[in-house]
Formats: sequence, C-alpha cells, structure tokens
Amino acid sequence: MPTYKAPVDDTVFLLNDVFDYARYANAPGFAEAPIDVVEAVLTEGAKFVEEVVQPLNRTGDKEGCKRHDDGSVTTPKGFKEAYKALVEGGWVGLAGDPKYGGQGLPHFLAALFSEYEISANLAFAMYPGLTNGAVAAILAHASEELKDRYLPKMTTGEWTGTMNLTEPHCGTDLGLIKTKAVPQADGSYAITGQKIFISAGEHDLADNIIHLVLARIEGAPAGVKGISLFLVPKFLPDADGAPGERNAVVCGALEHKMGIHANATAVLNYDGAKGWLVGEEHRGLPAMFVMMNGARLGVAIQGLSISEVAYQNAAAYAKDRRQGRSLKGPAEPDKPADPLLVHPDIRRMLLEIRAFNEGARALLVAVALAQEESLTSPDPKARQAADDRLGLMTPVMKGVFTDMGFANAVKAQQVFGGHGYIAEWGMEQFVRDARIAMIYEGANGVQALDLVGRKLPKDGGRAMMAFFAEAQQFLAANKDDAALAPYLAPVQTALGHMQQATGWLMKNGLADPNNAGAASTDFMHLFGLTALGYMWARIAKAVLARQAKGDSNPALDAKLTLAKFFGERMLPETGAHLARLSSGAATVMALPADAF
Amino acid sequence: MPTYKAPVDDTVFLLNDVFDYARYANAPGFAEAPIDVVEAVLTEGAKFVEEVVQPLNRTGDKEGCKRHDDGSVTTPKGFKEAYKALVEGGWVGLAGDPKYGGQGLPHFLAALFSEYEISANLAFAMYPGLTNGAVAAILAHASEELKDRYLPKMTTGEWTGTMNLTEPHCGTDLGLIKTKAVPQADGSYAITGQKIFISAGEHDLADNIIHLVLARIEGAPAGVKGISLFLVPKFLPDADGAPGERNAVVCGALEHKMGIHANATAVLNYDGAKGWLVGEEHRGLPAMFVMMNGARLGVAIQGLSISEVAYQNAAAYAKDRRQGRSLKGPAEPDKPADPLLVHPDIRRMLLEIRAFNEGARALLVAVALAQEESLTSPDPKARQAADDRLGLMTPVMKGVFTDMGFANAVKAQQVFGGHGYIAEWGMEQFVRDARIAMIYEGANGVQALDLVGRKLPKDGGRAMMAFFAEAQQFLAANKDDAALAPYLAPVQTALGHMQQATGWLMKNGLADPNNAGAASTDFMHLFGLTALGYMWARIAKAVLARQAKGDSNPALDAKLTLAKFFGERMLPETGAHLARLSSGAATVMALPADAF
Repeated sequence: MPTYKAPVDDTVFLLNDVFDYARYANAPGFAEAPIDVVEAVLTEGAKFVEEVVQPLNRTGDKEGCKRHDDGSVTTPKGFKEAYKALVEGGWVGLAGDPKYGGQGLPHFLAALFSEYEISANLAFAMYPGLTNGAVAAILAHASEELKDRYLPKMTTGEWTGTMNLTEPHCGTDLGLIKTKAVPQADGSYAITGQKIFISAGEHDLADNIIHLVLARIEGAPAGVKGISLFLVPKFLPDADGAPGERNAVVCGALEHKMGIHANATAVLNYDGAKGWLVGEEHRGLPAMFVMMNGARLGVAIQGLSISEVAYQNAAAYAKDRRQGRSLKGPAEPDKPADPLLVHPDIRRMLLEIRAFNEGARALLVAVALAQEESLTSPDPKARQAADDRLGLMTPVMKGVFTDMGFANAVKAQQVFGGHGYIAEWGMEQFVRDARIAMIYEGANGVQALDLVGRKLPKDGGRAMMAFFAEAQQFLAANKDDAALAPYLAPVQTALGHMQQATGWLMKNGLADPNNAGAASTDFMHLFGLTALGYMWARIAKAVLARQAKGDSNPALDAKLTLAKFFGERMLPETGAHLARLSSGAATVMALPADAF
Repeated sequence: MPTYKAPVDDTVFLLNDVFDYARYANAPGFAEAPIDVVEAVLTEGAKFVEEVVQPLNRTGDKEGCKRHDDGSVTTPKGFKEAYKALVEGGWVGLAGDPKYGGQGLPHFLAALFSEYEISANLAFAMYPGLTNGAVAAILAHASEELKDRYLPKMTTGEWTGTMNLTEPHCGTDLGLIKTKAVPQADGSYAITGQKIFISAGEHDLADNIIHLVLARIEGAPAGVKGISLFLVPKFLPDADGAPGERNAVVCGALEHKMGIHANATAVLNYDGAKGWLVGEEHRGLPAMFVMMNGARLGVAIQGLSISEVAYQNAAAYAKDRRQGRSLKGPAEPDKPADPLLVHPDIRRMLLEIRAFNEGARALLVAVALAQEESLTSPDPKARQAADDRLGLMTPVMKGVFTDMGFANAVKAQQVFGGHGYIAEWGMEQFVRDARIAMIYEGANGVQALDLVGRKLPKDGGRAMMAFFAEAQQFLAANKDDAALAPYLAPVQTALGHMQQATGWLMKNGLADPNNAGAASTDFMHLFGLTALGYMWARIAKAVLARQAKGDSNPALDAKLTLAKFFGERMLPETGAHLARLSSGAATVMALPADAF
C-alpha cells in the first residue's frame, strides 16, 4: 500500500526563501495569513489528508462508485465520512468568502493545500475541487438571489458542484451543444438534454448537488455565441433553503473508466429540469471559463500531486528493495544484494521525477501568488501583470505538468519492476489516475493551441515579454555570482531557444496558422522546461544564500544537485523542441486524409 | 470497439523492395518459403487473427481469468475455442521442427506473423508465444528423451509452456533464487519453492502445461552459477505420452494486474514437484537465456503491435469525429464541424505513431532475416555477422520498441479525448496492455545495461562497428542521389551523434562504470532512433526506385512524407540524448541514499 507525506517544509521554503513571502506582509488578501498561519494551516491540512484521505485511495479505486437502479450513486466505503470531516474541518471553504461561511483565507493557500489533498487521493479531491470551481463561477456571474440561495451551502461544501459541458457529440467544440433551455413563466428555464463525462455528477457525499449547465435558449444564435449557463440543482431548495423537491435531472449511467474510479463520472439526463440563468443570455461560455480557468490550474496541480506521491513511493522502494550489485562492486557485501538505489539508471528515473516535482512546486507557488495578487493588489498595474502571468502560465502548467506528471508516474512504476504492474502496490493506479489529467478540462493539445493562438499574441505579446524580461533580469543580475553560474548557464541556453521559437512563431504562425498549430505542443513543452529551469535557478540562489548564512540541511543541499541535474539532463530537450517546431507544418499537413 | 487490419502489404513491400528477399532464393531455411508462399501465409494468418483472435480482445480484458478454489483457472469466454483453432490451423507450429509436428517454415515468418497476432490480442498471443520460447529452450538444451516426450505436443501447441524465473524476493537478480531441487533415485528432481508472475502459468486452453523452472540443486554454489533449469509438467505423461498423474505444482493465486487481464499471471507453488534437468547442472541460466532472448524479441514486437493497432483506431477516429474547424477556415463548411484530422497537432500525434510503426516494422524484418541467417546460413562468417546483429539489436528493440509503443498507445488514446479514457472504446486497454512490455523479460533499464555493458564491448565492439559500417556505406553509396539527399541528411547527423556517444562511452564507461550506467537508457534510445532513421533512409530509396519505374501507389507515396517527418520531428531527439548522456554520472550519483 502506498504511503504519502505532504512536503510542507518544501512549500514553506519556497514561500519564504525563493519568493520572499514577507514582502506581502501588509498586502490585502495576504494580511490574514502571515507565514506562521500559512505553515500552521498547511501542517494541519497535511495531517488531515495523510490520516483521513490517503488511506481511502487504494480501496476507493478497487471498489469504485456504484449506480443503483433509481439513478442514485454510492461512493466507496469511507468516502462519506471522510468528506463530512473535510467539510467540518473547514477545508472545502478554506478560501471561501466569509459572507457565505468560508474561512476567508487567501486563495493561494487553498491551491497549495490542494496539492497535498490530490496527492492523497485524486478521485476524492475532485469532489471539493469541482465545488470550489462552481462557487467561483456563481460568485462572478450569478444574481445576488442565486448567490444567497446556494453559496452558503456550497462554500462550506455541504452541497457540491459540477460543471456540465460535454455532450455525446461534442467536447472541445462547445459550439455544437444541443441541450435546450426553454424560458418559463416564473423566470426559470426548463433544461432538456444529455450531458456526459460529468465528474462528481451524482453521489452520496452531500445533501444536494448543484449543476452548472451549458445549454442553448430556444431561438439562440448558432455556435458558441448562443450558449448560456444555467444553475440546475438536484433538489430544489424549499422556502427554508433545505433540499426540497427532486429536480428532473437523473444519472443515467456511470462511465467505466481507466482510473479515478472513486469519482462518479456520470451521464446526466435533463428532462425539463428547472434551472436558472447565470450571467447574461448567450454569454454562458465566458461565465463557464471562470470555472474552467480555475479548473485548469487545478488539473495542473494534479500532475504535480501524482508525480510527488509516486516519487515518494518509488524512492522508498529503491532504498528498500535489494536486487543486483553496484556496477563498482558490492556496496553492502554482507547483504545478499545491494539496494536498487545503487543503480545509476534507477537514480536517473527518481531524479527526473524529483527535479520536476520541486521545480513545478516552485512554479505553482509563483503562479498561485500571482493569482492572489491579480485578485487583491491595490495597484492596477500589479493586478494586470499578475493576471497576465496567470493567463499565460495556466495552459503551460496544465499541459506540461500533466504530461510530465503522467510520464513520472510511469517512471515511478518502472522502479518497481514487475510489482509496479500489480494492483496491490498502488503504482499502476497512479498511472491510470494521472492519465485523465492530460485529457479533461481541455486536452493538452487544446492547451497548446490556447497558448500559441491566444495567450502568446494577446495584448501584443505583453505577457510573454514580461516573462522574458523577468527571467533575463534575474540572469543578468546574477551573472557575476560564480557559485551560481553553473546553474544559470543551461537556463540561459533554454531561454535563447525559447526566444528563437517565439520569433519563429511570430513570423511563421501569421503566415500560415497551421505552422502555429504544428508547433504548439513543442512550444508549450519548451516553455514549460524553460520556466522550470528558471525556477531551479531561483531555488539554487535561495539555497546558496541559506548556506552562506551557515543555515543548511540535507534537503536544502540536495536541491543544488537537483538544480544541476535539471540543467544537465532535462533542459537539453529544449533544443530538440526548437528543432522540431522550426520544421513547420508542410510535412505534417502533406498527406491527404485517406492516406491515414 | 477497436478494429484491426494486418498490414500484410507493408510487410511484403519491406521483404521485396527494401530487403531484396529474392537474394535468399536458394538459401537454406528460406528455400521452403519463396515470397509467394510468405505472402500467402501472412494473408491467411492475417485473416485468422482479424476474424478469430481480435474480437476476443476487449471481452477478454473485461472478463479476465478466474482462479477456482481447486487452483484451476478459466480463461475468458471464447479463448478456448480460438486457441484450439490456432493449434489446428498449424499457427503455433508455423516454424516448428517437422520432426515434432511443426510446419517447418522459416522462423522469420513466424516472427512477422506474430506482429499481427499480438496486434489482434496481446493477452491471447502470449500463450503460444511462451510455448514457442519453451520449445526453443528444450530443443537447444534438453536430452533426446525429454525432447521426444514433450516436443511433439508442445510444437503444435497442444501443450503449452511457461518460463519460471521470478520469486517474491527476486526478479532481475536471479542469483537470489531459493527454489530447491533435490535429486531423486529415478534421475528426476523434487522441486520445491514459489514462483511468481508466471505468465500463462495455469489455464484451461491445453491438456498439459510444461513449466521450465530455474531452481538450485541442493549443495549448488551460491549465485547464478548454482542455478539449474528443470522441466516440470503439470501432468506427468503416462506410458503413451498422454497427461497422467497430476504433479505437485499448483496455482496459488492470480495477480491483479494493470492489463493483459486475459493472460493468467500465476503464483505457482511447487511442493516436491517432479522435474527433469534441462542441460547441465548449474548451467540453467544460459539454457534459460535461449528462451529469454527469443522472448525479448517477442516483447519488442509487442511494442510495435500495440502501436500499430492503436494507430489504426486513432486514425479512423480522427477521420470520423468532427470537432472544431481548421485553423485556415472551415474545411467542410456544409458540415457542423471539420474532422479532427484538420488539426495539425492531431496529425502530429498520428504521424509520430505511424513513422515509428513503419520504421520499426522494417527493423523487425531486417533483424528477423538476420536471425534466420544466423541459424541457417552455410557461411560461418555470415552466420556470425547475423548473430552479432541479432544480439546487438535485441536489447535495443526490446527497450525502444516497448517504450515508444507505450508512448504511442498513450498518444492514440489522446486523439480520442475523453472517450479515450472510457473502457468501451478500447484505447485505454492498449495503454494498460502495452505497459507490461516495458517491464517483463528484463525491465528496459536492464536492456539498456545489457546493451552498454555487454553487447557494445563484446568481441572488441565488432557488432557495433558492423552496424556503423553498414549504415555509413549506405549513406556513402547514395550520397550523389539528389532525390534521396533530403532523407539522408538527418540520418547522417544522427549517426554522428551515435558515434560520438559510443566514443564517449568507450572512454568514460571504462574509467567509471557508473558513467555507462547513467548513460545507458539515453544511449539505447539514441541507437534506436538512429537505427529507425537508417531504416527510413532505406525505405525512401526503395520507394523512389518504385516511383522511378512508374510503379507507385498512395501507401508508397505516403512513406516519403513519413520518412521526411521522421527526420524533421523524431531524429532531433538524438542531440538531446547525446547531451544528456555526456553529462556523466557525477550528478546522478551525488546524493546520499537518505536524501532520496
């Protein structure tokens, strides 16, 4: 059975040493959470997910969710109790609006806590994760009446939320949505249609489930400009706000999936269900995107989370399992064999995973802090810069963290040899669970296209230029630091590749949009590696600063090795990405359809 | 439900046009199989696996194997009938020795057929695959008495075979084996111990199962030099050779695995089971390696097979499913959306898979022909050269084909979006099934170490130098062919990287074996890509030759695009491999164990 220990020390190191958390001491949004509060919350949260949530991960996978003939769904044993404890501990509403019963702590703290929660149990963490996404969309776009009716229960997690986009014939292409909304005399709408792949769509964890549903009002324009967003509760609240009459939305089936078995992925059939418009008519997509963008960052975290827990278990196994001898002769001659960890290729796999994890956690902290600033900074310029950064990095992190997170789960499984393929060890579950993150909330190819097609050219490339400027300034400001130099050189090279790639895209993507499309995934990964390399440069600087003060420890010292490893073994890929994307679209588009 | 059509035309093109099959017209071994016979056999085999074996793939995964309280195991519905038809059609004994009831066709033909069989149903194909491996080991090492008793039933597949290496505490490190063999008065041995992960270890497909078991004779030297190989039948043949008394080997459990659910992965408990020595005492490992080497090539084919069937289904989906619009404006404006295939990133994924598949099939044909020559050529030098090539390429193909095959199954799944994650579509099964090929028959890290530690330095590097010489000669001989030039340039670059890497290894691997270990996986992949690139150069030449004769068709023309794509998009990775491996072992080995 896999184990998990949340990396609270690493998160706090990043906040304090790398991102100078103290600078926010008097900033709105952050004021409620000085570093000792942050650390205390993360420590408590770590304890909760380690003790209550993680033990349900394997059993939840094995048991799965069960749909009954009446359309009700039972979650695996223990989920109901754990979810109740999560709600009662205030963890769902950690960053919720106090007006609606939330804890009022900063959003970045909820994001950092969610890394741990997902490592402990992805399928479980999706229930509160989707609820928080729905809360954000309602807060941003719904009427005060809807907010007052639904947010008090949803903010705390007593009621959960879902997002309903996909239909059998369309996922990515939401313009094809057919679900209908017919205006009723009382101001509500009657919603009819079928939605599929609805995570947490039906379950027994909460007294009510609030669906946010994309549908087309009768007579609406065709395509995405005729889509509206509706709030459709499973139970219509009565006069006291308690769940009353059952609404006409039922779970028709649960999908049989590769993983996340403990999260109910529902087919939902709406048959004239009562719903209320959220935001304006035909403006459903922008409203849903509030939820989607948050969800994309949440999915990025899933990549990191599974990579982290997979690493921890693979490292433990490599230290414990004895097989073969060191290539330099027996390391422990009195034992029948040496631990796996003596083998360079085993170390290579573990270091690849870990160098990603700690770099990705740094990028997560940086972007979560930017998100907070984008919401709370009193300075409009700072808000804009932070929002630019968030918008730019969201597709990169979603695509790169989930691709690498999955690849890392596969590597961690490989460390276990044959045992990695056996369910009882839990490693193959990490692989199956991690796989969905590359697909949902916009498949990674869609993220790559969002990056090159929207985020990169937006506002004349302002967000991208700001990233380049920041990284270049860091490298320039530290160029005379001899101790830091070995960590900076490969980042400078990567940044050069990144700039060449951006130049190539600007020139050739305009000339032929297929050039941008054919380059998109390589560009996204080139960007991701460069951004992680930049994080490692900053981490190395922070570690050297601590060491210079004589304030060191083994975990810190290890980071210098990891920074070096990242430069030596992971950044060389940027050259290959540049070469590939520069080859353009001609060959990619050459074959006629019937040659495939 | 996935579909599959065996690529017979491609196999025949490779034999005829790329590898000049006609040159073997009078060669022993090949004489029985002129190209029209080869094509007829492959066509019939294709029909059989498409119609009989492939339809059982999804259902077999869903149903899995069931162990009953008495230790017996039932395979999924339809497997028994399909296996009977396979035996009766002579497919198990295709290349079997006619003396024992085999068809006497060349081994390479059986290997090329097995690609189709595995594409149709990996879990099913493992039953005959392991049987043929056991037959090869018995043929090479057992006494005439054992051969006469077992091979007639095993060659045809009426009885199946297994290989028993792994024990709970050891897989890769066979020196740790504890299973005991105690000599008996009648010349047999009493075998006692537990073996795990035994594929096809217990089932209802055949009247008898013949286990080849590694065990330690009482008093044997410690380590791998004290291990012997034993033949242990499930039922002891009676005087007429029919299955008689039940032997003391029982299936204690079936493993719960990530995939290949329809193959019974058994825990086998030996409790004084009667067995007979195969080969010499304490020389069990070399005897088992006959089986292992064949099995490694078989596993390499698994990587190609799943990649091929995954491609076929992803390409069909990309042509059928409509989602979004071409970046250049609607390609089919009268339809609500364009097919997925208009999107460059979808094409990129499909082309990556296909460029691997057709290049890998070429390498398979080349190596399967070399294997045939190594067995049958009258010229000792030709036999040696062919054996060198086979030995060198076996770990490369096992490691690279299975890593890329798995990655390709993941890409093909990605083309399906959310539907790729749902069991009914069958794509997630390909991913789960493909995953085992990276692990069993020596995890891919072990293959990489076999390559750099044994195969590369063997005989003063003769095999490697022969590969370089052949590839360089091809490039030199064709350097003035302007039409071919664009296909050769990237291969020349890759070959240069490969030569640099080999030089680096020779220098630094000797100085510190950890340098070789830390370089091994990158070197293996660098070699694999270079070898595939060389195959694409040869394919391109063959296609141009056909086109020059006015003898062209769309499938042939597509190969030029694929060759170009391979050079533009896949070979750039060789530079990254070279950079990574040249960074050496220092950083990889730097951290103490407790820092992991």
